[in-house]
Amino acid sequence: MSAQDTQTPAVVVRDVSLRDGLQNIARVLPTETKLEWLQGLYDAGFRELEVGSFVPPKLVPQLADTAQIVAAARKLPGLHVSVLIPNLKGATLALEQGVDLMLLPLSASHAHSLANLRKAPDDVVQEVGRIRAEMDAAGTKTALEVGISTAFGCTIQGKVEPQEVLRLVKAVLDAGADQVSLADTVGYADPRQIRSMFEQVREVAGERLVCGHFHDTRGLGLANVMAALDTGIHRFDACVAGIGGCPHAPGASGNVNAEDLVYLMHSMGLSTGIDFDRLLALRARITQWLEGECFQGAIWKAGLPKTMLAEPATAGAAAA
Amino acid sequence: MSAQDTQTPAVVVRDVSLRDGLQNIARVLPTETKLEWLQGLYDAGFRELEVGSFVPPKLVPQLADTAQIVAAARKLPGLHVSVLIPNLKGATLALEQGVDLMLLPLSASHAHSLANLRKAPDDVVQEVGRIRAEMDAAGTKTALEVGISTAFGCTIQGKVEPQEVLRLVKAVLDAGADQVSLADTVGYADPRQIRSMFEQVREVAGERLVCGHFHDTRGLGLANVMAALDTGIHRFDACVAGIGGCPHAPGASGNVNAEDLVYLMHSMGLSTGIDFDRLLALRARITQWLEGECFQGAIWKAGLPKTMLAEPATAGAAAA
Repeated sequence: MSAQDTQTPAVVVRDVSLRDGLQNIARVLPTETKLEWLQGLYDAGFRELEVGSFVPPKLVPQLADTAQIVAAARKLPGLHVSVLIPNLKGATLALEQGVDLMLLPLSASHAHSLANLRKAPDDVVQEVGRIRAEMDAAGTKTALEVGISTAFGCTIQGKVEPQEVLRLVKAVLDAGADQVSLADTVGYADPRQIRSMFEQVREVAGERLVCGHFHDTRGLGLANVMAALDTGIHRFDACVAGIGGCPHAPGASGNVNAEDLVYLMHSMGLSTGIDFDRLLALRARITQWLEGECFQGAIWKAGLPKTMLAEPATAGAAAA
Repeated sequence: MSAQDTQTPAVVVRDVSLRDGLQNIARVLPTETKLEWLQGLYDAGFRELEVGSFVPPKLVPQLADTAQIVAAARKLPGLHVSVLIPNLKGATLALEQGVDLMLLPLSASHAHSLANLRKAPDDVVQEVGRIRAEMDAAGTKTALEVGISTAFGCTIQGKVEPQEVLRLVKAVLDAGADQVSLADTVGYADPRQIRSMFEQVREVAGERLVCGHFHDTRGLGLANVMAALDTGIHRFDACVAGIGGCPHAPGASGNVNAEDLVYLMHSMGLSTGIDFDRLLALRARITQWLEGECFQGAIWKAGLPKTMLAEPATAGAAAA
């Protein structure tokens, strides 16, 4: 592991399975299992993880033990720990727990925003300002990322105007967000749309546009990753075993599969710091823990090409 | 159908399910079913189809009725009919049947070439010359395409050198092939490799490089399509329901899924001339005819995004 620990990966795969994945699966896993899951991700080489959310346990009982998961995650050396927060109250809890990053979703779709957060987009912008004020008052090192969700279309509203996405990106940065990401929450995006939107947002946000969050609902997940990579994005959310989704966005099943994403990057010589065999071993355990749920992915079935078996898939030296 | 009949599609999807698809499925479908399949493809708007192969029926009994399928296909107005041929003998049969295009596979992998065609690559180049001579003697309008298979790696041999691919492309064009295509027969290719190889072959072959043939074995099929599209390729092989493979290349399951490919193009505003609803209806019938076999694809489950339901997916006017 020493080689991958000491080198900066060319592409960061931020696993969100403990949040976006489990949030969309009805069953509640024991905390002990989630801690094994967390350790498995860490041992596979992930160094950025979204491990839960500080939403009311009544709404998302699957993530009620987020504080315990965060406490364990903070003990893992070099791990960058993030949680989802829906509002100021969640931010207060997250700051108390000392996470590295809080991710606040803001739906560019007005209709989805009301369904998911019970607030209009501009109310969420106001909340960003309040969270920023609390962060400044506390003098925290925690960072705030606003994830612009349904940035490429919405199952409820349909089309989402790019100009609205750009307006909201500018507004949340002005209100005090440290960074932004773009999410295809419902799997509507196509590669040209991805390229165009990331390029436009880059003009507004510069290097503060840090991540792409894609769902593979319609098979375009990795094509969309490639399109964003071409615009200079080097961080992508993904879920081991391709679990995940959003309960308030019908049909939004399946984050981009982490194994396939890691394979894609390694196949192009882009390092991720992730040990492929350990990742596949974790996938196998997860499919046991979640037996009966839906899983996605291709590489776990087919195996690595013969052309990639000669050298270790984690070779950091291969980074472009 | 009139709008799509009178316009040139931005991207040609060449369905190969009646050849590459059925070749890799053990059961032998009745000719009558295959004729329904053919008609279904035509009715969905496909205008280029690979409908069989002239190989000895003893080797591929599934395609023994190719002459009957070709005869029916030739009666469909405006349909460009192609068949696979393994050698001069196959070419003679294909020319007798009056196909529009003969596709001769040439493995850039020496090991795969011996396993698949029982000839070394340079012996196949010689065969191209003999086929060209027969074509010229007959004064045929039929064209000859050489598909460079295992162009991105091989399950038997492993790495395939790009220089070997380039050498063979030049050799078959010199020997009389009208056009060439590049095939990732075993699903080893990644988008950067695709981009690099198509750009290099373009320098040798120019506009005679006409098609990309990709398998989705490891989930990168559509990402690879995008990479080739970026280099100027506007014709892709695909299989309805994602069936297909190569019996001599272990693990080479699944051509790129035609429905997902058509969806990808339509989502970007690139016309294909294909009616999406008819395509999905055909998929449903195929999965009945081949009940129990493996199928691939995402869009048939998720359905079109709300953003694409307002206007017909076949709109030729949306072509870029």
